Amino acid sequence: MVFKVTVSSARRATRTLWLLALVSLPVCISVCRASSPQEDSAMENIVTEKKAEESHRQDSADLLIFILLLTLTILTIWLFKHRRFRFLHETGLAMIYGLIVGVILRYGIIHVPLDGGNITLNCQFNASPATLLVNVSGKFYEYTLKGEISGNDMKDNEMLRKVTFDPEVFFNILLPPIIFHAGYSLKRRHFFRNMGSILAYAFLGTVISCFIIGLLMYGCVTLMKQVGQLNGDFFFTDCLFFGAIVSATDPVTVLAIFNELQVDVDLYALLFGESVLNDAVAVVLSSSIVAYQPEGDNSHTFEVMAMLKSFGIFLGVFSGSFALGVATGIVTALVTKFTKLRDFQLLETALFFLMSWSTFLLAEACGFTGVVAVLFCGITQAHYTYNNLSPESQDRTKQLFELLNFLAENFIFSYMGLTLFTFQNHVFNPMFIVGAFVALFIGRAANIYPLSFLLNLGRRNKIRSNFQHMMMFAGLRGAMTFALSIRDTATYARQMMFSTTLLVVFFTVWICGGGTTQMLSCQRIRVGVDSDQDNSMSVGEGSERRSTKQESAWLFRIWYNFDHNYLKPILTHSGPPLTATLPPCCGPLARFLTSPQAFENECQLKDDDSDLILRDGDINLTYGDITVSTDASGAHTSGGPAFAGAATSDDLDRELAYGDHELVMRGTRLVLPMDDSEPPFTEPHHRMRM
Amino acid sequence: MVFKVTVSSARRATRTLWLLALVSLPVCISVCRASSPQEDSAMENIVTEKKAEESHRQDSADLLIFILLLTLTILTIWLFKHRRFRFLHETGLAMIYGLIVGVILRYGIIHVPLDGGNITLNCQFNASPATLLVNVSGKFYEYTLKGEISGNDMKDNEMLRKVTFDPEVFFNILLPPIIFHAGYSLKRRHFFRNMGSILAYAFLGTVISCFIIGLLMYGCVTLMKQVGQLNGDFFFTDCLFFGAIVSATDPVTVLAIFNELQVDVDLYALLFGESVLNDAVAVVLSSSIVAYQPEGDNSHTFEVMAMLKSFGIFLGVFSGSFALGVATGIVTALVTKFTKLRDFQLLETALFFLMSWSTFLLAEACGFTGVVAVLFCGITQAHYTYNNLSPESQDRTKQLFELLNFLAENFIFSYMGLTLFTFQNHVFNPMFIVGAFVALFIGRAANIYPLSFLLNLGRRNKIRSNFQHMMMFAGLRGAMTFALSIRDTATYARQMMFSTTLLVVFFTVWICGGGTTQMLSCQRIRVGVDSDQDNSMSVGEGSERRSTKQESAWLFRIWYNFDHNYLKPILTHSGPPLTATLPPCCGPLARFLTSPQAFENECQLKDDDSDLILRDGDINLTYGDITVSTDASGAHTSGGPAFAGAATSDDLDRELAYGDHELVMRGTRLVLPMDDSEPPFTEPHHRMRM
Repeated sequence: MVFKVTVSSARRATRTLWLLALVSLPVCISVCRASSPQEDSAMENIVTEKKAEESHRQDSADLLIFILLLTLTILTIWLFKHRRFRFLHETGLAMIYGLIVGVILRYGIIHVPLDGGNITLNCQFNASPATLLVNVSGKFYEYTLKGEISGNDMKDNEMLRKVTFDPEVFFNILLPPIIFHAGYSLKRRHFFRNMGSILAYAFLGTVISCFIIGLLMYGCVTLMKQVGQLNGDFFFTDCLFFGAIVSATDPVTVLAIFNELQVDVDLYALLFGESVLNDAVAVVLSSSIVAYQPEGDNSHTFEVMAMLKSFGIFLGVFSGSFALGVATGIVTALVTKFTKLRDFQLLETALFFLMSWSTFLLAEACGFTGVVAVLFCGITQAHYTYNNLSPESQDRTKQLFELLNFLAENFIFSYMGLTLFTFQNHVFNPMFIVGAFVALFIGRAANIYPLSFLLNLGRRNKIRSNFQHMMMFAGLRGAMTFALSIRDTATYARQMMFSTTLLVVFFTVWICGGGTTQMLSCQRIRVGVDSDQDNSMSVGEGSERRSTKQESAWLFRIWYNFDHNYLKPILTHSGPPLTATLPPCCGPLARFLTSPQAFENECQLKDDDSDLILRDGDINLTYGDITVSTDASGAHTSGGPAFAGAATSDDLDRELAYGDHELVMRGTRLVLPMDDSEPPFTEPHHRMRM
Repeated sequence: MVFKVTVSSARRATRTLWLLALVSLPVCISVCRASSPQEDSAMENIVTEKKAEESHRQDSADLLIFILLLTLTILTIWLFKHRRFRFLHETGLAMIYGLIVGVILRYGIIHVPLDGGNITLNCQFNASPATLLVNVSGKFYEYTLKGEISGNDMKDNEMLRKVTFDPEVFFNILLPPIIFHAGYSLKRRHFFRNMGSILAYAFLGTVISCFIIGLLMYGCVTLMKQVGQLNGDFFFTDCLFFGAIVSATDPVTVLAIFNELQVDVDLYALLFGESVLNDAVAVVLSSSIVAYQPEGDNSHTFEVMAMLKSFGIFLGVFSGSFALGVATGIVTALVTKFTKLRDFQLLETALFFLMSWSTFLLAEACGFTGVVAVLFCGITQAHYTYNNLSPESQDRTKQLFELLNFLAENFIFSYMGLTLFTFQNHVFNPMFIVGAFVALFIGRAANIYPLSFLLNLGRRNKIRSNFQHMMMFAGLRGAMTFALSIRDTATYARQMMFSTTLLVVFFTVWICGGGTTQMLSCQRIRVGVDSDQDNSMSVGEGSERRSTKQESAWLFRIWYNFDHNYLKPILTHSGPPLTATLPPCCGPLARFLTSPQAFENECQLKDDDSDLILRDGDINLTYGDITVSTDASGAHTSGGPAFAGAATSDDLDRELAYGDHELVMRGTRLVLPMDDSEPPFTEPHHRMRM
């Protein structure tokens, strides 16, 4: 087989990766510089060096476009916030600016044709290796594979190729800080209180949504094939993949408004928790679908073994990433607990940052998913390490990740806007697009409504129908969906998915995001609930007790007991001394692990998470009452699948009274009302189940 | 000419750039993934994809080594700080850990041989283009030049090649935050007060040092040639280049100890200011020397035109970078002044970060030096923008850049340690090394002592001999020297320079850095001067007046007047209203530019920089007194070259009394004692001179 190696100019040196152009591109410069002192080829080298420098400059200029775009976005957002315009969120705005720049780049005056001077080499080899070694009269030059270039690309606008950058940048640079921030800023109290529901929405819901959308899209694609609208292959696995990537919701716009308007905290927790976790599920799900490789010739038949293998991959990768994330979080917590790093805030912050980053690397190095690991690392850090940090470092780490999140998010959204016009291989198929929107709607509905119904059977604090509608409405798609869809745009099917996904993101961010305030008032969801502020609460004894009852969800109580009695004391300075909670045989270990503060604080313990129960009482109660009045028939339902093994209402009342009594004795071993069949000491295995 | 294109495995994909391995390396993955759905070559693609994934994992693991190294450094530093060990600074420690890991990588068990499977292609072309296009049966693949690989490299340890990363990373990723932080944290008051001396040391001193070291090294190299110790070319321009790169001092270790022990602020300002600015000078100087290209055959003869051109490049690049840096700083100041971004700290911080970064990109895009631009941007931001920020953003930006600086600095130093063993082309020549150390010593002495003598002629507050010795001693070499020397290690001369530079850095950081406390006590320099705290001062009327006299340096006064009357009011909310300082013809403009606060504050003005004069009085006085007692003969010398045009001591006393009087009337136009021949209104051109 005869090969052609085409040698083009230095201009092409730098297509992808120009977000970090400053890293990758000067390679050429340095390389050329490195070779320039050789007298024999000095002139050529100088020419190459100049071209490479030119290219470096060009890349700096390109990156500058984005920086200015972000700056402009910031200034406009400020204006919007200043004037209290709520219909357009910063991400929506970033997209608009991105679109404008995209249009300018595409149809504007800047149209740099590719220069000629390509040289063709004939070589005997039949693949595209990741690296080429070129032997130039004894000197070896290393070339790395940058990517495939379609025939169109070569004729096409150089500028557009320049601003199209490596899709993996999203996954490996921009998403991790966003996801970590999400985990780190999870409203812990409400998250844990609604843990069961959140997990159900995130895991079951995402899988349901993925398969429903996949099936519907397969129907749509089959129809398109018959109508003759389809110009390429589109297999069922592609449909499922599409289902997986568009199942990752990202209601950042909605949540920003929720935050501003102080919407009900439980709704916030449900939405935020679901969106954070379903990102993780969607990532692992999509990679499992890609990994579906039946043996035999036709790789698109159904095969049980391959499917089981995919399922195994899903479980393995997810639990592996989860374990890694939690593990580094715990290590960080232990390090910050047992050193006095808190005296040196800079060191503390740096350590925190490095450890969190190392989770990502560790997961990637082990073949797990870094993004997922980072999410659980963030949650663990927020739950344990955060308490060990000095107040300055708490602020610093929060602010640092807030900033990184802000920059990364706006960068992604402005790039989304840009790429609508600069991406070279868009496939817009009206039928597919309509089908996708319908499928998305049905998929979301099939996630929210049935699950809410089932959950309500077990929940005391029901998810009301207006909350359900709001969750349905808030199923925006954002950064994760985009990053997953742009990761692979090689085939016709994937290109069509990518183009459709872009439209989905635009539509949901602008329309659903912009209509949030209208939707809130239309659904009569209370705003201005100033319940997130701990200090604004005055809890009476009665409401406290009743509220404890409200949230005595089965999963939550198990977790809370275990966390309060064992994990908190081991990993932080708070909680009761381990000597009091561990069985006596572990005495020396318990003494070693318990921090001196825990003994000191035994009487005046400051444990953030007992607020979880004591302080939130009044709000929760408020909602509890409303719930009762709304659908009174189910208000006192105990039992049901999600509440299996719980005591009757009366028993619980008694137990709760007992529980309250124990809660008053802060600093000693806490036993929340547990199911009788489950003694507290067998709890450790629940950690696995969580 | 016949070429060989050697096709190697995916393993080689990722030699350089692995600091941001996560950015650059997944390219291969995405590319392979992108091509995998093509049925015809599915199997090969799967193999390539697996290899690329393997490579991505490997890179994550490599990067992890560094992260863990940094984590270890942080923990050890904490221990050192906790126990108050001052003999080893964190950077020294990072180097030691780097060395250890380097030894393990070099001589340890991990010795991955390069796998075979290289394929040779014969092609007709005679250069190493920056990009190759490989045509594989109709599909084009793009390959980017990664670098030259020596024959040795190919046989060598794969692991070592992996941990050797692109030298431009230092310049474009790690140095900018360090340099920006230096500019941003410049102790402004003392910096401006000692501006003349700092500029003299930084500009004149660096040039002197560069040429002296260059000449001495040329002598050394000539000697080596005669003795037969030299195995390659070493031209005079190489010697000068060496002089330039080792003239960049980096007394980070010393300054950390100064800070901790609260050493005299003027000494601190002199050292810090010099080291910050001479980095910039050294960068531009070295690139000007590289740009020295005489016409004709022999490119190493002396030619006046080429030298003038180099000189022109130096001036052009330096002033261009300076102007750009200041310009973006001013734009940021104006934006933060005229918007109410301060209500939204996140936006404010993000804007600040983006604008500062854009300076770097802008400078690189214009062909100037990004690092230099960033330095002056940092200084401008600190001087103006900082005052417009909300207190939260002031903290946030400070902390952000502090963190980035810390991480980047320790990364560089640990990489330095690592590279002593992992760099493949070290040339250790004992004669050259000894020569370099001697030349460095003489060069530093030729910078400090003569300049100090000349400066003392003009300074009221003399630089005492023990200060001079301390400055001599504190001439450590650090990150900038390393980054400049690793940028180009292609020729024999450059490799020898690089190896020598490494040793210089090790020696100075460990020995000079470690001996700082001893040197301080040996030179009897007072420590524990708690003068940096503004709040700890109680200034008496008398000392105030005398201190004002002390610092009435010519350059400083011009600058101060101009800054206080025009720049501060334009760019910040402080200072007197412009309507009072600008001539009446500019009335409308003045009213537009003056912020409402300036009018409000007219009576109770908070201007940080009038502290410059009023508050520091007592300390300065203390030192002034000591100075007088130390070398009393020169204490009252006025006139002299650096003080040209100044009034006599008596005149000045009267003027200063007047100046103090005006200073009391805060908020109105301030006229510090100026030379009579220079009326205040002609000041604008001084901005150019600064």
